[in-house]
Amino acid sequence: MKPRLLTPGPTPVPEETLLELARPVFFHRSAEFRAILAEVVEDLKYVFQTKNTVVVLTASGTGGMEAAVANCCPPGSKAIGLVSGRWGERWKNICKAFGVEFINVAVPYGQSVAPGLLEKALADHPDAIAVFATLSETSTGARNDVAAFGRIVARTPALMIVDSISGLGVMECRTDDWHIDVNVTGSQKALMLPPGLAYVAVSDKAWAQIEKNGAARNFYFDLRKYRDKLAENDTPFTPAHTLIKAQRASLKRLRAEGIEHVWARHARMASAARAGAKAMGLELFAEQPADGLTVIKVPVGIDGNAVLAAMEKKFGVKLANGQDSLKGKIWRLAHMGYIDQFDVLAALSALELVLLEHGFPLEPGAGVAAAQRVLAGGAHA
Amino acid sequence: MKPRLLTPGPTPVPEETLLELARPVFFHRSAEFRAILAEVVEDLKYVFQTKNTVVVLTASGTGGMEAAVANCCPPGSKAIGLVSGRWGERWKNICKAFGVEFINVAVPYGQSVAPGLLEKALADHPDAIAVFATLSETSTGARNDVAAFGRIVARTPALMIVDSISGLGVMECRTDDWHIDVNVTGSQKALMLPPGLAYVAVSDKAWAQIEKNGAARNFYFDLRKYRDKLAENDTPFTPAHTLIKAQRASLKRLRAEGIEHVWARHARMASAARAGAKAMGLELFAEQPADGLTVIKVPVGIDGNAVLAAMEKKFGVKLANGQDSLKGKIWRLAHMGYIDQFDVLAALSALELVLLEHGFPLEPGAGVAAAQRVLAGGAHA
Repeated sequence: MKPRLLTPGPTPVPEETLLELARPVFFHRSAEFRAILAEVVEDLKYVFQTKNTVVVLTASGTGGMEAAVANCCPPGSKAIGLVSGRWGERWKNICKAFGVEFINVAVPYGQSVAPGLLEKALADHPDAIAVFATLSETSTGARNDVAAFGRIVARTPALMIVDSISGLGVMECRTDDWHIDVNVTGSQKALMLPPGLAYVAVSDKAWAQIEKNGAARNFYFDLRKYRDKLAENDTPFTPAHTLIKAQRASLKRLRAEGIEHVWARHARMASAARAGAKAMGLELFAEQPADGLTVIKVPVGIDGNAVLAAMEKKFGVKLANGQDSLKGKIWRLAHMGYIDQFDVLAALSALELVLLEHGFPLEPGAGVAAAQRVLAGGAHA
Repeated sequence: MKPRLLTPGPTPVPEETLLELARPVFFHRSAEFRAILAEVVEDLKYVFQTKNTVVVLTASGTGGMEAAVANCCPPGSKAIGLVSGRWGERWKNICKAFGVEFINVAVPYGQSVAPGLLEKALADHPDAIAVFATLSETSTGARNDVAAFGRIVARTPALMIVDSISGLGVMECRTDDWHIDVNVTGSQKALMLPPGLAYVAVSDKAWAQIEKNGAARNFYFDLRKYRDKLAENDTPFTPAHTLIKAQRASLKRLRAEGIEHVWARHARMASAARAGAKAMGLELFAEQPADGLTVIKVPVGIDGNAVLAAMEKKFGVKLANGQDSLKGKIWRLAHMGYIDQFDVLAALSALELVLLEHGFPLEPGAGVAAAQRVLAGGAHA
C-alpha cells in the first residue's frame, strides 16, 4: 500500500529535502553554517513578504508564539485576542501564563472573526498593547482576514501579532503590506520540513516595544538575543542546524515557483477539494475556508472516526480528525506544501469509497469529477 | 578529502540514524508515534540511569536548562551555582532572566568545583532552593564530581540540578543513585543525533517543589504539561517527531553496548587522547578532565587559530576552538558518541603534522604511539 499523508501538519517533505537530512552532520559555528542561515533567512523573508528581521527558533510553533507574547507583552499588560478556534485559544493560554490580560473576542468554531469585532474591541480597550490573530485556524479550517485586521491595528499603538503557522506559504500573507508586527510560523506545514523550527518576523514597531519593555521575561525565547546574533549570521544557542540546512532546499522550491503562484496553486487545490466534498453531498465546516485544508462535517449517521480509520487502513490515505470537542465530528483534509492536486483527488476518491461502504448515499465519481472540473479551470468552489 | 568532525557537539551521527531522518514524514498524533516515544523514553531512562520521569523537549539544550530554572525556582528564590566555565555561567544567566538570586560559587577556568565549596555555600545559604552544576564543562574540558555534589545536596531541601549535556552517555552519571533531581541533556552530543531535542529527567523531590511553586512561569517549557501528556505517550506541542524517531536508532546502540561499557569506552578514548597530547609535549587545560573531550592548551609561540584552520583545510579534521576569552588559546578535541578511537588517532596524527609544519618541536609519531599504547591496554593517562 502506498501511504499518503494529508494531515495539516506535519505534512510530506520533498525527497530532496529528506535526503539533505541524511547528510553527515557538520559544525554549526562555521562559515558553512553562517552562509546557510543567511540564505534561509533571505528566503524566509521572501515567503513572509517582509523586510523585517526574521529569527529562527529551535522549537515547535508554540515556542514561536511564546516568544511573541513574552517579548512584546509586559506582565499586567492587556491584549485583544481574536479567537476562532483552538489555535486562537493557544494565544489566550500563553497570555495567561505570562500574566497578560486577554480580551477574548471569540466566535463560534467554524466562523471567522469579523473585522468589525476588532474595531469595537480596540475602541473599548484603547490601552491594548497587542492584538493576537490566526491567519488559518487549523482546528476549524477557517480563514481570518488578517489584511483587514492589520489595517485597523496599524492606526493604533498596538502590535499586530499573527499565528500564520498553517497559512504562510499557502495563502496570501504580506507581512509588511498588511502591517503584521510579529508573524509566527512553523517549519512543518507549507514550508515542507519536519517539525522542529519556528520562524518569527519582527517589525520595527515591535522591536521598539520590546526595547521599551526592558529585560526579557525569559531566556531561550529572548528575541533580542536572536536578532543580535543574526547580525553575524549566527544563533545564540545550538540550533537544529541540519533542519535549517534542509529548509533551504524546500524554500528553493517556493522561490522558484514564485509566491503568487504558490498561493494560486493552493487556492486551486482548495477549490477542488471543496467542490469535491460538496458534490459528494458533504458540508464544509468553515464559513470562510482557508486554502491549506478543507474541513468537512461528518454527516449525521456516519461514524467519523471509523471512516478515517478505514481510509488509512484500506487505502493508506491519512486525514486528520477533529481535536478535543470536534473529534469525530469533522474531517480535516490538508492540501498544503508537498501535497499536490492529485493527492487531493486520491483523498476524495478514498473518502468516496469508504463512505459508500458505510452506506452514505452518493454517486460514485461525483466528488472526483467535480474536483477535476475545478482543476480543468472551471468555476471555483 | 574525508571529513572528520571531532567537535564537542554537534557530533557525527551513525549512518543508520541519518537514514531514519530521510524516511517519509508520518503523523505525530498516532499509535506509531506513541510507541516510538514510549520506547525512546524508556531507553533515555536507561541512559540517565533513572526511574524518574524523562520529558522530551523540542529545543536546544539551553531550552532544557530554562525548563529546570523556570519550573523549580520561583521569582525571588535563591540558588547556588557551581560554575567552572561558560556552561556554568549559562545557569547564572538563566537564573538572572528568571529573577532567581544566584550564589556564584566559581572556580577559575580549567578547574573543577571542589565539593567542599558546595558544603560551605549550603551552610551559608541554607535557604537555597536549588544547586546548579555541570557534569562536563564543555568550554574547559573539566569534569565535576556530581556524585559528591548529589550526596551533599540530598541532605538538604534543595534540588540538585545538573547540566549533563556533554556528559551523559560519556561518563558515569547515575541520576537516581547520585540524587540528581533535574538532569538536563541534549540530543547532539553522546546521544548521537543532530541538535533539536533536549531531555530532562525530573525526580519526585523536584515535582513536589514544582507543584508547590504553583502556576508555571512560562508555557512552552511548563514541565507539568509534558509529564501529563507523557502518561498517554504523547507531547503537549508538535514535537520534532522525526528526530525522536531517529533518536531511537542511536539509543539502541547504547543499550546494545551496555552503559558501563559505553562509559569505559569513552574513558579509554579520553586516556588515549590525553596520553597522545602529553607525548607531543602539549599541556591539558583541565585539571580534572572530562571523558567526552580533551582540551589542550595552545603552546606559546603557536597560532592556535591557524593550526585549527590548517587541520581542517589540509586534512578535513575539525576540532573546536575555545569560546569567548579562550578563543585561540585552547583546542577542544571531542571523543564522544559516534567518534571512535581511530578518529582520535586521526586527530592526533593531523595535529602532529600541522604542529610540525608550524615549527613546534615534537617527535613524529610520539603522540599517536602514546595513544596507541593506552588503547593496547597500557597505563591510562
